[in-house]
Amino acid sequence: MNRQELIKQIKTKKSFLCVGLDPDLDKMPESLHGDIFEFNKQIIDSTARYCVAYKPNLAFYEAHGLKGYEAYEKTVEYIKDNYPEIFIIADAKRGDIGNTSRMYAKSFFEIQDVDAVTVAPYMGKDSVAPFLEFDGHWVVVLALTSNPGSHDFQTKTIQDSPTDAKCQLFEKVLSTVSSWGTDENIMFVVGATQGSLFADVRKVVPTNFLLVPGVGAQGGSLEEVAKYGLIPDCGLLVNSSRGIIHASKNDDFAKVAQEKAKELQEQMCEILRQANII
Amino acid sequence: MNRQELIKQIKTKKSFLCVGLDPDLDKMPESLHGDIFEFNKQIIDSTARYCVAYKPNLAFYEAHGLKGYEAYEKTVEYIKDNYPEIFIIADAKRGDIGNTSRMYAKSFFEIQDVDAVTVAPYMGKDSVAPFLEFDGHWVVVLALTSNPGSHDFQTKTIQDSPTDAKCQLFEKVLSTVSSWGTDENIMFVVGATQGSLFADVRKVVPTNFLLVPGVGAQGGSLEEVAKYGLIPDCGLLVNSSRGIIHASKNDDFAKVAQEKAKELQEQMCEILRQANII
Repeated sequence: MNRQELIKQIKTKKSFLCVGLDPDLDKMPESLHGDIFEFNKQIIDSTARYCVAYKPNLAFYEAHGLKGYEAYEKTVEYIKDNYPEIFIIADAKRGDIGNTSRMYAKSFFEIQDVDAVTVAPYMGKDSVAPFLEFDGHWVVVLALTSNPGSHDFQTKTIQDSPTDAKCQLFEKVLSTVSSWGTDENIMFVVGATQGSLFADVRKVVPTNFLLVPGVGAQGGSLEEVAKYGLIPDCGLLVNSSRGIIHASKNDDFAKVAQEKAKELQEQMCEILRQANII
Repeated sequence: MNRQELIKQIKTKKSFLCVGLDPDLDKMPESLHGDIFEFNKQIIDSTARYCVAYKPNLAFYEAHGLKGYEAYEKTVEYIKDNYPEIFIIADAKRGDIGNTSRMYAKSFFEIQDVDAVTVAPYMGKDSVAPFLEFDGHWVVVLALTSNPGSHDFQTKTIQDSPTDAKCQLFEKVLSTVSSWGTDENIMFVVGATQGSLFADVRKVVPTNFLLVPGVGAQGGSLEEVAKYGLIPDCGLLVNSSRGIIHASKNDDFAKVAQEKAKELQEQMCEILRQANII
């Protein structure tokens, strides 16, 4: 899916919500007997009208071996067959040397045919570039994540020579990685929990889409994200996982998920209106 | 497997060779009809006496979807059943926020029960710590990788305050990550292609095991790695993948792999003798 199509969907649905499909067996109703695909199917059917993207986190599937992997594949197929307008992000956080990243890119973009994959930047250009060779597909690079450990390395000060301007590692990642592609094929992960650092991100990448986790369970605020991150064509995908899919552990989980998604969509609609995007 | 057992195996086999199980369908003999597990089985049976570790890179399995994942699981099972003394490293380069890394750790260490997993450091402590909670299991953290892109970020100069000593990002990763665990549960990836930077690594982590890719196809030299990296109880696992498993594309691939592994083992035996480790 290209940028234009993504923006069109955002304007049609009046939403920039991404629902994180991170199913936790311990938080699923007992009546489903641990059937991950059935859980996802019900979540998808009840939330698809309120969101523009789904983001399955591979860890939650791989943790269950073959059975989990199969549930992941069926979930991707189900979304593509029934909601082809929705953007699919495989949250895999991959990143390897060139020839290996090429295999991952082929697997995600040719075989599974998802729209985007999350990638870690630590190994540099040859680990990211293979993902940029597929038209209409995106790489979503970790820049400033939402977790406490984000301050261990990402916010350290970089200065390569005494004449260079100082910057933080995440700013170096943003400026370097954005030069490898365009705002039509590179997005960045920026956590909703980072407060005013969010404004620093927009200074370096004024036009790239940002994928924003950390609203809800992790404590980030949608208003603050919009204040610092919104650009004239939106440029934001805000993700909520647990706060939607596991809002209820009972048989009404899909209905409650729908209410939670609708709530966020309504807040997003208001934000888009105030910014004259819709 | 704990450090003592690993070192015992190194001394018994007179080898610190890790064979990378990265099967590429295009480089396998046609007679195998793309049967990855059968290919691995023959490679393992012919190289097990010359190596102390196997390192399947998950990308080469995940690229083939469910079928590939199944071949990976069967390969791990086969090694554990037939060569229980051999150290298994799942080369997965994972790394996610705390609750997600916990799922990965459980999957690799409880369900698959491999000895070690490679992890990317960019997301910080909560992305690595969950892997350190399993006795006799190891996390192998990317520090200075073997690929060209390693210089995009890993060798950038960090200086957090004017009074702090300057260091490179990979040195910051080594010093910070090594403080989260011990040399009994943390190893680091350091590429064989990094020449004299290797000496800088040993200044920061004098006792941790290093997993060293890049010898062979990528151009690194075993002698140089040993010169800078060897410590009194060895402290090195040197990996070769393509240079062994795809040395021949014909039906003699297992025999040729054996010769290549034996060659490296003999060089390693000589290095261990000269250093009075055996």
